[in-house]
Amino acid sequence: MDIHIVIMAGGVGSRLWPLSTPELPKQFIDLLGVGKTMLQITAERFKPICKADHFWVVTSEDYVELVKRQLPEVPESQILAEPEPRSTAPCIAYACKKISMHFPDAVVVVTPADAIVIRTERFTSIIEKALDFAENSDNIVTVGIKPTCPATGYGYICAASIEENQIVKVSSFKEKPDRETASSYLAAGNYFWNAGIFVWNVRTINEQIARFAPQICLMMNRMADFFYTDQEAEAVEKYFPQCEKISIDYAVMEKSDDIYVIAGDLGWNDLGSWSSVGDYIPRTEQTNSLVGDNVRLFDCSNCIVHATDAKQLVVQGLDGYIVAEKAGNIMICKISEEQRIKEFSKGK
Amino acid sequence: MDIHIVIMAGGVGSRLWPLSTPELPKQFIDLLGVGKTMLQITAERFKPICKADHFWVVTSEDYVELVKRQLPEVPESQILAEPEPRSTAPCIAYACKKISMHFPDAVVVVTPADAIVIRTERFTSIIEKALDFAENSDNIVTVGIKPTCPATGYGYICAASIEENQIVKVSSFKEKPDRETASSYLAAGNYFWNAGIFVWNVRTINEQIARFAPQICLMMNRMADFFYTDQEAEAVEKYFPQCEKISIDYAVMEKSDDIYVIAGDLGWNDLGSWSSVGDYIPRTEQTNSLVGDNVRLFDCSNCIVHATDAKQLVVQGLDGYIVAEKAGNIMICKISEEQRIKEFSKGK
Repeated sequence: MDIHIVIMAGGVGSRLWPLSTPELPKQFIDLLGVGKTMLQITAERFKPICKADHFWVVTSEDYVELVKRQLPEVPESQILAEPEPRSTAPCIAYACKKISMHFPDAVVVVTPADAIVIRTERFTSIIEKALDFAENSDNIVTVGIKPTCPATGYGYICAASIEENQIVKVSSFKEKPDRETASSYLAAGNYFWNAGIFVWNVRTINEQIARFAPQICLMMNRMADFFYTDQEAEAVEKYFPQCEKISIDYAVMEKSDDIYVIAGDLGWNDLGSWSSVGDYIPRTEQTNSLVGDNVRLFDCSNCIVHATDAKQLVVQGLDGYIVAEKAGNIMICKISEEQRIKEFSKGK
Repeated sequence: MDIHIVIMAGGVGSRLWPLSTPELPKQFIDLLGVGKTMLQITAERFKPICKADHFWVVTSEDYVELVKRQLPEVPESQILAEPEPRSTAPCIAYACKKISMHFPDAVVVVTPADAIVIRTERFTSIIEKALDFAENSDNIVTVGIKPTCPATGYGYICAASIEENQIVKVSSFKEKPDRETASSYLAAGNYFWNAGIFVWNVRTINEQIARFAPQICLMMNRMADFFYTDQEAEAVEKYFPQCEKISIDYAVMEKSDDIYVIAGDLGWNDLGSWSSVGDYIPRTEQTNSLVGDNVRLFDCSNCIVHATDAKQLVVQGLDGYIVAEKAGNIMICKISEEQRIKEFSKGK
């Protein structure tokens, strides 16, 4: 099977300011203090499935050098630069269209660059099942995450049956629910978090985009005349920004009837907020989550502290706060107020 | 009258960490966010009394370059370098001995480099009275500060009478009192804060040192053979560190009977702690004290925030905290715990 991995690494991660900034978004950072960036962790997760010479990364043109540096094993020609962010549908359409021209039988896994998966072996097995299914089928397979709490920060996939680790039909996609609805999803058992991971053969996704997102398909066809030529960058620069700005969920998933899901309890988290990061970084004895060698905490509890650039950071007497520092930017705020971080991060 | 000003600028200001560090102590910092360092503010305070060519600064040899840069109007030959800190008695003895050799009729004001005086005109008038008295007298005049609260962080001068703005005899010096004793001092009316400011003619202080601190006098005499020669630095390097490490208060003031005080309500503060600094820096509408252009506060009150090097600092939801940043060192602590700052500042 001709497997390819497409890593989407164009996001800006504004909810993790000041660690994540437009100059250096969270996928390029060692968020968890493990010596690897989220992009590197993501790439590593797919190495049991596919060699790195079949990895593709789609990112902003501003981040191409970062990707080259962090994933030197990925061929430079497979790092695709978006001239401007147009959400996931144009991003995916570009990568899959280009792959399909040289690899018409490719079966592709698309993944965000910035999530964590704890149970990687189970993940590998689920992806392999999805690949086997997608190779000879005109269907799309999404990966669902068995919810562990009534989270309101994720979209949900409603499956036709409750089975885990099996490929089942998708009944519908659900947007981020309120708390009550999320609780009913959790109780029902056949609702899964949408991890934004998709598996398909390139023929199928190209057809689905042609059918449900014809404007994007048109731009891709214009660009495709120049793929693998010296004029590719110029063509992308011209046509890509004209693509409709729309997520793959809205553009295809919610419209198509050919969607399946394979769900599992994978220990997955999109690290989309400081509190989720706090759940995955080392705990001190005093219930603080701490990344940073030059940090000393006194009388602190339930704090999330992330400071890797500070020469010294001393924190005394805080309970339930985020203290984050990166490159001279410092934020101190209550964890309970973390939804205001976009407001906090806006300079004067 | 041949007036000279001796500014003692050798302290390390450890209670204002991380703003004040051994590399750049508080007297060399724009503590109050006014565009001038405490040393510059101190020097300015004496310019109505004496021209800068009669200013002397005693400091650690590590800080000589800082002094030259911050007070270019002071002759370089009048910046005296201590090879190591030996408290105030050897510092004062060195400056006054050296001054006396070229200026035997000098009348000297000795002052710390790091205090603030709000009522500068009243201060000038008090210093001038003290100088007039000291010129033709074998007595020492200290400057007392009329207490505004029962402070436990200062030594007290017990005067023979309650009069302000008059030169009166000192009955005794009192070490830092407990709260109850400080309250009784405040009620009595004849107790004044010891600001560490002294006025005398050089003959008098040399004699008093000879009488009450003979070991220091001996070292000074050995050094004095080389004052104003190429070998001065070498002699100071050799003998100064052998001086007894003792404050002028212990060495002379508490032993001598020839001490007078002139006291006033001067708006004086030694800025010896973060809370005292907080009292003198600009207030925001939300009762925070703030120095730093790149700071934004949300839902904060009663905080002292000082951050001039941070690219951005955002603080949310703190009440009664110090947030201080300098050169990549960051401290967050309750104001009520500020006496622990020495502990906090000790690196691992």
